[in-house]
Amino acid sequence: MSEFSVSHVLAARERIARLVHRTPVATSRTLDTLTGNTVFLKCENLQRGGSFKLRGASSRLTLLTPEERARGVVAFSSGNHAQGVALAARDLGIRATIVMPTDAPHSKVEATRGYGAEIVSYDRQTEDREAIARRISEESGAVLVPPYDDFRIMAGQGTTALELFEEVGDLDAVLVPVGGGGLLSGCATVAQARESKVTVYGVEAELADDTFRSFRSGERVAITPPATIADGMRNLTPGELTFEVVKRTVSDILLVSDDDIRAAMRFLLTRMKLLVEPTGAVGVAALLAGKVPARGQRIGVVLSGGNVDFPVLAEAFQFSDETRS
Amino acid sequence: MSEFSVSHVLAARERIARLVHRTPVATSRTLDTLTGNTVFLKCENLQRGGSFKLRGASSRLTLLTPEERARGVVAFSSGNHAQGVALAARDLGIRATIVMPTDAPHSKVEATRGYGAEIVSYDRQTEDREAIARRISEESGAVLVPPYDDFRIMAGQGTTALELFEEVGDLDAVLVPVGGGGLLSGCATVAQARESKVTVYGVEAELADDTFRSFRSGERVAITPPATIADGMRNLTPGELTFEVVKRTVSDILLVSDDDIRAAMRFLLTRMKLLVEPTGAVGVAALLAGKVPARGQRIGVVLSGGNVDFPVLAEAFQFSDETRS
Repeated sequence: MSEFSVSHVLAARERIARLVHRTPVATSRTLDTLTGNTVFLKCENLQRGGSFKLRGASSRLTLLTPEERARGVVAFSSGNHAQGVALAARDLGIRATIVMPTDAPHSKVEATRGYGAEIVSYDRQTEDREAIARRISEESGAVLVPPYDDFRIMAGQGTTALELFEEVGDLDAVLVPVGGGGLLSGCATVAQARESKVTVYGVEAELADDTFRSFRSGERVAITPPATIADGMRNLTPGELTFEVVKRTVSDILLVSDDDIRAAMRFLLTRMKLLVEPTGAVGVAALLAGKVPARGQRIGVVLSGGNVDFPVLAEAFQFSDETRS
Repeated sequence: MSEFSVSHVLAARERIARLVHRTPVATSRTLDTLTGNTVFLKCENLQRGGSFKLRGASSRLTLLTPEERARGVVAFSSGNHAQGVALAARDLGIRATIVMPTDAPHSKVEATRGYGAEIVSYDRQTEDREAIARRISEESGAVLVPPYDDFRIMAGQGTTALELFEEVGDLDAVLVPVGGGGLLSGCATVAQARESKVTVYGVEAELADDTFRSFRSGERVAITPPATIADGMRNLTPGELTFEVVKRTVSDILLVSDDDIRAAMRFLLTRMKLLVEPTGAVGVAALLAGKVPARGQRIGVVLSGGNVDFPVLAEAFQFSDETRS
């Protein structure tokens, strides 16, 4: 098998250009002053479907053969991947089935259905979503679209970094959230291909530190189901393909607490008027909490998504006096 | 006195280019589907200082003589004008004094002070802020910066529309919030100067309908202090200079209810991940509530600001089940 490279990302960009928003890059002199760096925020929370997941899904779906297109696609996800696949499928006129848990947030189920996908519910306690998705795939011939562990998905997510560098030029460092590793592996591969050196950090919730532990040990480590507010980081282990790329392209994995994440969400909403979900706010959380070993540098940060459930938003803010200052 | 024209706006643009953000234009296929139009949202909520007010303040302050700069500036405002003047003054190395009521939101006072301005407090019940500002001006020689009724302020605000047209090309209609009329008069003048016809609507809270009534009668009408959630529209009468421009450039004033505004704020935050203050959301409110006589048109909407106090945000959302769907 050939190695994953920036050429995969460049090819994906050609295929998905008309399907995804070229999202804006936000800056804030207040953030620069607070962190002592010059910070560029790539706003994938403003992406169609509310996250970067549309990129990978579009990258994969544009490679389906006519026969595969006719049979449709299937995916399992309670979160942004569901919306990404559903939206990409609608754009391309492909039938999509999404396997979602019965206790998924109403808003996410409705958004996914709103994009025209068929929803298949399962009981998180008693049923295995992968088995259900595989059975649907075998019975209908629908193509299973994995959330991250696939070169075509990783390539799509990497287009985020391509756009960021095109917009702002050279950067000293890039901070990328890491769940399964699709976004991080794609973006790190783009960064490594540049002429000037870029230090790439993955940022992870300390309550969901599977990639941190794996990176330290050099082998994929599995953790018990994590209870972090960052719902996009609740995978138990890094992807196999993504982790191979992360190992050779990423400088370090930084950890942030759930309180660091809440503080970053508050800063982004009150000072920058941007709604960012917990997983999407980890890069700013690392900067504000002093977890990034950088000073006077040009730093790119990927805000990976903005799909926040209201109970989470209320918890992050709690509308206390503290949050008013 | 010569008439206000687009040449004032073009000159202002040259002066303020390096001081203001060129804010992004956001689009949403969901919003297009819901409204039956193609909608372009000019995101002044992402402007430095959180609103368009920085444009007018920068436009005025860049015209001060060296002697005036040395004496400083003074303004009265409990809201976005305070932050706009304070920030523009800091950028230009000018001393600013802002007269704010003792009961102004803590967050706005702190933000204004954070930009380096001196705050002079007054009792809203017993003191006259204009008299205080005028006394400061007379005693110190500081130049009074009015919130809207000044060609140089109106010209700065109009640069918002210049950027919007440059970004998206021809539009059939433009929706602009109207408080004192600085933003509306500036933007309408830019729209009227284009080769292709643009219909300009001012949008106002129905609880603060001074411009609506004035527009209908042809004369400036004063209302009693309004209790709308749209705190940027609590002026009692349109400006003298702004109203003359509004009369000859605007097609109509549309009214929206406070509930329409809350619904628009919810849509903008949950679907588009943008925090927009009540005054800034009136254009989207008019579209979603079916108040705009348009179908199949290209419509520009100015989201004028994003400075929301937490009690207002909580009130708009109330974190009910209704808002989760």
